[in-house]
Amino acid sequence: MATTTLTKVHNFSAGPGILPAEVLQKSAEACINFDNLNLSLLEISHRSKNYEKVMEEARATVKELFEVGNDYEVMYLGGGASLQFAMIPYNLMREGGSAAYVNTGVWASKAIKEAKIIGNTNVIASSEDKKFTYIPKGYVIPKDADYLHITSNNTIYGTQMKSFPKCDIPLVCDMSSDIFSRKVNAKDFSLIYAGAQKNMGPAGSTMVMVKKDVLGKTGRKMLSMLDYQVHIKGESMYNTPPVFPIYVTLLTMQWLKKNGGIAWIEKVNQQKADAIYNEIDRNSLFYGTVEKEDRSNMNVCFLLKKPELEPEFDKLWKSAEISGIRGHRDVGGYRASLYNALPLESVNVLVDVMKEFEKKFA
Amino acid sequence: MATTTLTKVHNFSAGPGILPAEVLQKSAEACINFDNLNLSLLEISHRSKNYEKVMEEARATVKELFEVGNDYEVMYLGGGASLQFAMIPYNLMREGGSAAYVNTGVWASKAIKEAKIIGNTNVIASSEDKKFTYIPKGYVIPKDADYLHITSNNTIYGTQMKSFPKCDIPLVCDMSSDIFSRKVNAKDFSLIYAGAQKNMGPAGSTMVMVKKDVLGKTGRKMLSMLDYQVHIKGESMYNTPPVFPIYVTLLTMQWLKKNGGIAWIEKVNQQKADAIYNEIDRNSLFYGTVEKEDRSNMNVCFLLKKPELEPEFDKLWKSAEISGIRGHRDVGGYRASLYNALPLESVNVLVDVMKEFEKKFA
Repeated sequence: MATTTLTKVHNFSAGPGILPAEVLQKSAEACINFDNLNLSLLEISHRSKNYEKVMEEARATVKELFEVGNDYEVMYLGGGASLQFAMIPYNLMREGGSAAYVNTGVWASKAIKEAKIIGNTNVIASSEDKKFTYIPKGYVIPKDADYLHITSNNTIYGTQMKSFPKCDIPLVCDMSSDIFSRKVNAKDFSLIYAGAQKNMGPAGSTMVMVKKDVLGKTGRKMLSMLDYQVHIKGESMYNTPPVFPIYVTLLTMQWLKKNGGIAWIEKVNQQKADAIYNEIDRNSLFYGTVEKEDRSNMNVCFLLKKPELEPEFDKLWKSAEISGIRGHRDVGGYRASLYNALPLESVNVLVDVMKEFEKKFA
Repeated sequence: MATTTLTKVHNFSAGPGILPAEVLQKSAEACINFDNLNLSLLEISHRSKNYEKVMEEARATVKELFEVGNDYEVMYLGGGASLQFAMIPYNLMREGGSAAYVNTGVWASKAIKEAKIIGNTNVIASSEDKKFTYIPKGYVIPKDADYLHITSNNTIYGTQMKSFPKCDIPLVCDMSSDIFSRKVNAKDFSLIYAGAQKNMGPAGSTMVMVKKDVLGKTGRKMLSMLDYQVHIKGESMYNTPPVFPIYVTLLTMQWLKKNGGIAWIEKVNQQKADAIYNEIDRNSLFYGTVEKEDRSNMNVCFLLKKPELEPEFDKLWKSAEISGIRGHRDVGGYRASLYNALPLESVNVLVDVMKEFEKKFA
């Protein structure tokens, strides 16, 4: 069933990240001849029947994968998750209201910064005290806040929420870097959003799924392009959408469904994560950077015990056609991103390189 | 020199519009193997050297084609021109200030609507009285407004400004549907923007070129993603940009430069427009919808004198592999969009169809 095709390069990029080979092939074909129209997808109207079908399916497939009903709506918007950092408080925080945020890293901090421009924003928990190497737990959620904002996976630091806070107020989650990587109970969330370029598709579109009952309550006079209700009414075509990125995102979701959906990918992702974390813990030359219980199955951060050996390790993985495992500048060392499309074989190649490195330099 | 390759279908789509065949070919190749990396452009980091070079060139080429210097900055943003309808007043209208707008159609009206949400917005001229079939002239521009906003070409109605207002206040122009189609004196403008999907590239990115001296004067506390200065500081990579759409836009600009640049395309576009307008005026079965002096060289709107013959005309052009000439619902009839990538040969095919139609039904 698992038909992830191995490309020549083992692509561990943190994002924009690896996409399935068959998706890339179909994307290339659509650049020349889309849907047998003898026209490129890059030069047809987004109002053509052929593309309206793409948009419809792209919206419906999110709801299908998340197993939610018609009380939710799906949009694909431009501007990246960063624009959502502003749009979420703009659409959900009432005039004179407040919002609660959990700060688990750079992206959560940026979301907090924008929310503070809109209104009263309280950081109710943070792991900044230990450089974001763990997920805060046991915090009290204010009952009078308009929503609680969390980040399910922290790409830069390599931490991941293994469970989500029980919450009486609307729960909003940035799932940019682990959407559709594991089973979540989507009905517990009022809003889930994800910049597509990590685990859903290419850069250029952001998926927002929102429960309709949280909208229209702010009392704010809203700019059209920042108003979720405008985009929902326009069925995500209020203006010309990012046509091609959304199509590639649909292809990626279809690849996921065809191979067995979330249940399948969750298992594969666990195998990949186990393989590399086991090696990090076993190998005498490496160590992980975060609390074990909060380790991300998507972004695996690790350091060399002897940093002076980095040039030697770099030579070795580069010669194995591995790409994109240099750590973010805030953490240093290495980061292997194990997004859905990364095959287990690529992880095994990296693990073999780590073993070989130990043999040579331990 | 003119190497526009004829595709099988004559694509007169109003937007997203036709792109050069060689651009489509290179786009398809980049989906599989970009820059000989053995990786797809859809799955590499926007921070990779290879992509940073694309962004740098995409920004520089706009300034080169517009012949402006370092007092201007170029950004590629998500969200479409529609997001710019909000960002322009947000960045240029002072708290307590005002802006002046010329209303020449649906898109100008939408820009006005958003500006009114931000602050004091005056429509100083409008052609709404005659269903936007002409370009207003001879209006007085208020000296105390923060800027004047105009729309150079009106896709839906088929009108185009043949000259631009002399203006002592910053001049802002939506050039979405005729950017790089003709010579303009870009230095007369403080801000030029264009949704790429009509004449620059595919859907998903919007180009904004701004003169730096108009920024930072509003006194407004700004959301990061709506702040031009944030994007300029980040060299259009404050957040993950729409990677692939920007690359295809660069390819399209390179195609234009290689073939002779603006001087070349202006001539070709004039030939195309002359060919079809001459036929509309000559043919006893058709008439144009707008004032002759304001006719757009990009979007040619025309009607049948006997609307009951539409099904017959439709049969004829469809059999000639013509696509996308149905008029916008606000105008009806037909609209042939003659964007840069449309070859003269396609226009000739349409003109031949119109002649044949006259022979059969006059």
